[in-house]
Amino acid sequence: MTAVTPRPEPSDRLVEAFLQETAGEVAIADFASVLPFLAEDIRAIDQVLQAAIRASYPQLTDAATYACGSGGKRVRPLLMAAAHRALGAKSTVPVHALAAAFQLIHTASLVHDDVIDHATLRRGNASLPRAFGLPSAIVTGDYLFIRAFELAADYPRSIILRCGESCADLAEGEILQENARFDLSVDREHYFRIVERKTAAIVAAGLASVAEIAGAAPQVVEALSEYGRTLGIAFQVRDDYLDVYGDPVTLGKPLYNDYREGNPTLLSLDAYGALSGHSRDEFERLFQKQRKTTRDLLRLKELTDASGAGPRVAEEATEWSDRATRTLEALPPGPYRALLGHVAHGVARRRF
Amino acid sequence: MTAVTPRPEPSDRLVEAFLQETAGEVAIADFASVLPFLAEDIRAIDQVLQAAIRASYPQLTDAATYACGSGGKRVRPLLMAAAHRALGAKSTVPVHALAAAFQLIHTASLVHDDVIDHATLRRGNASLPRAFGLPSAIVTGDYLFIRAFELAADYPRSIILRCGESCADLAEGEILQENARFDLSVDREHYFRIVERKTAAIVAAGLASVAEIAGAAPQVVEALSEYGRTLGIAFQVRDDYLDVYGDPVTLGKPLYNDYREGNPTLLSLDAYGALSGHSRDEFERLFQKQRKTTRDLLRLKELTDASGAGPRVAEEATEWSDRATRTLEALPPGPYRALLGHVAHGVARRRF
Repeated sequence: MTAVTPRPEPSDRLVEAFLQETAGEVAIADFASVLPFLAEDIRAIDQVLQAAIRASYPQLTDAATYACGSGGKRVRPLLMAAAHRALGAKSTVPVHALAAAFQLIHTASLVHDDVIDHATLRRGNASLPRAFGLPSAIVTGDYLFIRAFELAADYPRSIILRCGESCADLAEGEILQENARFDLSVDREHYFRIVERKTAAIVAAGLASVAEIAGAAPQVVEALSEYGRTLGIAFQVRDDYLDVYGDPVTLGKPLYNDYREGNPTLLSLDAYGALSGHSRDEFERLFQKQRKTTRDLLRLKELTDASGAGPRVAEEATEWSDRATRTLEALPPGPYRALLGHVAHGVARRRF
Repeated sequence: MTAVTPRPEPSDRLVEAFLQETAGEVAIADFASVLPFLAEDIRAIDQVLQAAIRASYPQLTDAATYACGSGGKRVRPLLMAAAHRALGAKSTVPVHALAAAFQLIHTASLVHDDVIDHATLRRGNASLPRAFGLPSAIVTGDYLFIRAFELAADYPRSIILRCGESCADLAEGEILQENARFDLSVDREHYFRIVERKTAAIVAAGLASVAEIAGAAPQVVEALSEYGRTLGIAFQVRDDYLDVYGDPVTLGKPLYNDYREGNPTLLSLDAYGALSGHSRDEFERLFQKQRKTTRDLLRLKELTDASGAGPRVAEEATEWSDRATRTLEALPPGPYRALLGHVAHGVARRRF
């Protein structure tokens, strides 16, 4: 990290776009002094990531590059760099490889998710299985996991193991979710158990690792872990909401994927809980259909509208983000801590 | 490792069965003094492996345990333990976690292979995707890779990276193979490029790592790596042969899988190269069919018979195993080195 303010790069615009989307021009002005550094961090992390995924066989490099393509929001690298700087680090170089590893793990899990969910679109482009075929998608996901662990090999054993545990959580979350498909009898606790494993664990592990590398006190490591966990939950709850109430063009993928796949989300569980009589029966019957028509999906949305679940779930996402922000009180105050709070705020309100 | 000869365990019988299958009672008598130690090594490595795959969610543990089930020949742990002892180690404890890691990587790759190849049987039982469903199979494969890397985290960075590189080779080999499907124009060099990555690299990496841990001289590390590479090739060439000329009951899976999937093996490439005129055209036409009938498969076998490729390929497997045995000259002589030579001999002649 040089002292010179870096030239604007696509990653600048990425952070800006994220802040603008979530809180408008004001937020960008608030963070004008720190944004160039974070943009440079994200760019540097991306360089480490790109170097790591280069394979000797071009088609594997192509598929891996496609999977890691620029459509991603890069929220994880942003959080890890900002957290490291919030703890007083002048340079984020010591966490670049780790942030790249966590971004690769996240990407690997998305690739295998797209295989499992038969997803055809991801961030407005053909999903990897659609673009490269199922065999390539499976192997490319494996490859991204492998490269992530190679990057993590540079860190102390405790960090490699934390990284590994969060990946095991991810696998467990996926299995839990798979078993809960088409099942509206799962309760909120079970839903959160899935989300903690499938989404939150990896964010928490990345941030706790950054705190450990910065030499932070145990309560700060714990606070950042809890920030990651609650922010991860806020992210997923908002995701559930957007799957029904988002704009497919902004999202870059079709709506109603969770209805289609029969994933019990907070939205569908809340709607099902609030409905009664004939509406409730109809919701259940449609939700449990293995192959749903467009008409079925639209009717599920209508019933969800009628249940009033939408605003409640949107509100719940913001409550989780408020919890995330409160955990930051254990960190030293400053613009990077403020930015982490802002990201939590934005994650629960994002439209993409 | 205690000095007391261990009680007979199923792993005893595993090693014995392997030796007996490949060279009869004589071989077992030859190695009577060392077999109990290796059987105990394999048992201990299996315990490390079983402890590593225990998940907090029982279904993931079940699927992982099923994948690692006792049907496997445990050739990799056997090789790694024998190599470590051949280099003078009195205890193989220092390589148990690493051998378990390599066995997990091997198993993970088989699980994902079975997804890619739509395999329904593996070692006489339903394949993991068939028994647990495709989503579980993908996630369980990921989970096994993850646990392997956690086990590898106990070793020096050079070993973690060697392990990672061999996994990347595996992914690359899978993609190369996928791209070569239904293509009889690939040459022998390309076939060996696939086999080196998909099968041989991981055996070579495991053995080179063992040598490094034992503090062996660079030329011994290199010799064991080359032994692993050539033995891996012998293994795969024999595998190609058995897919057409094996006994499906002994193999625990149906024959003609490579014909069915259109994988150009040494057998099909040799047959295609040796045939001419109408037979060659017919072989090509049938091989390239995406959906082959039983009649197509049997006709491909007939044409392969007529080409004389079977005995040539069986012979080539033994040539690779002879090369493997010759590389062992760099190791100190003794019963463990002799056993490694015997395993190479057996791998190229096995019927299961």
